[in-house]
Amino acid sequence: MKRLTLLACACAALLATACGGDAGYRTIDGTIVFDEPARAAGQRSVLQLAVDPIPVVRTGFIGLGMRGPGAVERFTHIEGARVAALCDLRPECVEAAQRILGRRGLPRVPGYDGEEGWKALCERDDIDLVYICTPWQNHVEMAVYAMRQGKHVAVEVPAATSLEECWQLVDVAEQTQRHCMMLENCVYDFFELTTLRMAQAGLFGEILHAEGAYIHNLEPFWDYYQGNWRLDFNRTHAGDVYATHGLGPACQLLGIHRGDRMTRLVAMATPSVNGRRLAAEKMGADSFANADQTTTLIGTERGRTILLQHNVYTPRPYDRKYQLVGTDGYANKYPVEGYAFRPAQVADALPDHERLDEHAFIPEAAKEALMARYKHPIVRDIEAKAREVGGHGGMDFIMDYRLVYCLRHGLPLDQDVYDAAEWSCIGALTAASLAHGSMPVAVPDFTRGDWRKVDGYRHAMHTE
Amino acid sequence: MKRLTLLACACAALLATACGGDAGYRTIDGTIVFDEPARAAGQRSVLQLAVDPIPVVRTGFIGLGMRGPGAVERFTHIEGARVAALCDLRPECVEAAQRILGRRGLPRVPGYDGEEGWKALCERDDIDLVYICTPWQNHVEMAVYAMRQGKHVAVEVPAATSLEECWQLVDVAEQTQRHCMMLENCVYDFFELTTLRMAQAGLFGEILHAEGAYIHNLEPFWDYYQGNWRLDFNRTHAGDVYATHGLGPACQLLGIHRGDRMTRLVAMATPSVNGRRLAAEKMGADSFANADQTTTLIGTERGRTILLQHNVYTPRPYDRKYQLVGTDGYANKYPVEGYAFRPAQVADALPDHERLDEHAFIPEAAKEALMARYKHPIVRDIEAKAREVGGHGGMDFIMDYRLVYCLRHGLPLDQDVYDAAEWSCIGALTAASLAHGSMPVAVPDFTRGDWRKVDGYRHAMHTE
Repeated sequence: MKRLTLLACACAALLATACGGDAGYRTIDGTIVFDEPARAAGQRSVLQLAVDPIPVVRTGFIGLGMRGPGAVERFTHIEGARVAALCDLRPECVEAAQRILGRRGLPRVPGYDGEEGWKALCERDDIDLVYICTPWQNHVEMAVYAMRQGKHVAVEVPAATSLEECWQLVDVAEQTQRHCMMLENCVYDFFELTTLRMAQAGLFGEILHAEGAYIHNLEPFWDYYQGNWRLDFNRTHAGDVYATHGLGPACQLLGIHRGDRMTRLVAMATPSVNGRRLAAEKMGADSFANADQTTTLIGTERGRTILLQHNVYTPRPYDRKYQLVGTDGYANKYPVEGYAFRPAQVADALPDHERLDEHAFIPEAAKEALMARYKHPIVRDIEAKAREVGGHGGMDFIMDYRLVYCLRHGLPLDQDVYDAAEWSCIGALTAASLAHGSMPVAVPDFTRGDWRKVDGYRHAMHTE
Repeated sequence: MKRLTLLACACAALLATACGGDAGYRTIDGTIVFDEPARAAGQRSVLQLAVDPIPVVRTGFIGLGMRGPGAVERFTHIEGARVAALCDLRPECVEAAQRILGRRGLPRVPGYDGEEGWKALCERDDIDLVYICTPWQNHVEMAVYAMRQGKHVAVEVPAATSLEECWQLVDVAEQTQRHCMMLENCVYDFFELTTLRMAQAGLFGEILHAEGAYIHNLEPFWDYYQGNWRLDFNRTHAGDVYATHGLGPACQLLGIHRGDRMTRLVAMATPSVNGRRLAAEKMGADSFANADQTTTLIGTERGRTILLQHNVYTPRPYDRKYQLVGTDGYANKYPVEGYAFRPAQVADALPDHERLDEHAFIPEAAKEALMARYKHPIVRDIEAKAREVGGHGGMDFIMDYRLVYCLRHGLPLDQDVYDAAEWSCIGALTAASLAHGSMPVAVPDFTRGDWRKVDGYRHAMHTE
């Protein structure tokens, strides 16, 4: 018996060596599987978390460089929202945000700056929500601190930059029973919201495949990231480090952790040519980890697929893809918005358009009629105001409006901490796949088995 | 020592079991590697094969159902081509093709039908080229027989349906020193040829990524495949079984086996919903292997990537993608043709268009000027005639014209047997990846090491 045991142990060791393995993951049947920590005692799921209504959502903002000032401005337009405190590393950024309030006829609010200012903001007892727009690598430390101070959190994309950080966000949200919403704005763009509603109405039949991307040549923008943090992050991180704008809308279409879940992915990447040149020019760096273009395939429990791409380096038109392939229809946003259907699918919705061809995009007039008919209720109510206030064609405003609306009415938020973790973990998982010759990588189940409990994605709505 | 040997053997067996393995392949570092047969003695490479000029290319056609009659018609328009014999399983198809000759003022030619007719055609001593348009699974048997009878071969896509068949084509071409060209027509489409020339001129900088697809809802067409052979093939074959239209143009852009080579792929697929329904309706089948949509990522020796998709089942506009991502430019064919460049890249070519924006497609007028300037010489010469004769907007005619042109002038053909094998093997390799949870699969080197010998893709041209 002793000899057999020895044999088995030696083989296990050999397997681990042959297939790759370290402290954080194992390789099982050719798939990299990262350790998934068990839920600690006393910690409970925040799936569909609702807290008591907050009539006036007093909000503290951390990070007033690029995305923060626009958020401050938008909050001054939202009923039931109050800008309650401001913080940035640089006092001049805090002052600039105070001037936004002034222009809107509002009083100055408490301001914080320096390395530790954000902690003091989080510790205030007159704040309900902390809204974080700092560089990616500060997100989790700040979100966790805010939740531990009893605050709800809204945090820019990606919410986290490693698997450990993703689990930390989930665990702290579950321990504190606080909301932690990632500020994924592209799920609120008009085409995406309308198409989601059409999908929910069954127009595309069964959804089989979705695509998303972040293809945006950042060449003119690198210098705007304070201390060059973004290029520096990409210098040391391979993979799809900015997946959420493409993945978020796809996950809402597929009902991820609402009846389906992402189970595995494979990634493949080009060399870094433009990225490496940029890093040499701007930083004197002689290496660059992030590929000029990274492509990822994700599979779900129900066997559906997602295609993701990331390219912030080469001359191309801006492109988030947003494509949906269903058994009975098709939607595509870039480079041109279009829908195709089996004619029977839209016969009721488009009674005046009888000669549709399932092999072509429906005519422009039919598209407009269909999009008007399926305009999402949350768009309908605030569209005019959103376009007036602005911010990415209104989607940023709808995002903030919905965040405040749900908090005011004690509803579950549109994006929960599991979304934040699922959409943010793609960076680390794709890096692992790339490091192992495109080997499949298992996607952790951040809901720890609860992904079957909700049936499909829905925006919570208040009813009197 | 004996005990150690025993241990090693047991571990090897355990590894083989754990990672998957059978007679035809091994798993090495998480990648499926199929056996690659060594080149037999006396067999030599046909890379850049040129044979003596054939002033009049006497051609026998096998398969006169769907693609064959159009080819016969086109050959009557090509200088130096002669339709020399006709064959189909069904005598009425042979007669219909004879009538094409009659309408073109040409005499009847020897005709063959029945199960063995094609062999008699191949055996004729007054034929130079056998042109095969039969169902996929007959291609290799017929191509091999024709080459062994001393004939050159042109064979419809895909040339082969298994790895064994791919190797068989390569080996017989090398043994007989005959041409074996797959009839991949999409490489001759106008946008593809023009863009290839722009790429060869360096307008896109270094090419990093290319995309191709066959997205074509075949619902109205399934009944045209004699004996339902195509749906029946897909019923039993998972994977991207029809990759060549998307892959061919991508491989020419990347110079595959002309300085680079495909080394590995991963595939992921949706469930089969529409395919399964079709097979139940048309065949009473209760299973269907081919997914409604299959997506494949391919990596090359030089680290570049190719994205492929296959979907012949859902309502979508026809789409072959044809996308090119370069360090200095971008091209995209579907759903709208467009180019984007760093302005400096096209400053010489477009002196009148000074305000180009690398974040957007160049304006329509600039695109037209650029495409006129980079129109491929082989298009320029025959464009008018191709449009007149027709066949997929002229690309079929250009294909046949080039085949005959190269044979008449004793030049290497535009597509060689290695292209045929590389583009056709994707079906079997993607099936293997899908069967193993998207595990990477090595792409065989059908050139057996010769892929470095030619620098970049070129169309051979005759000079006096």
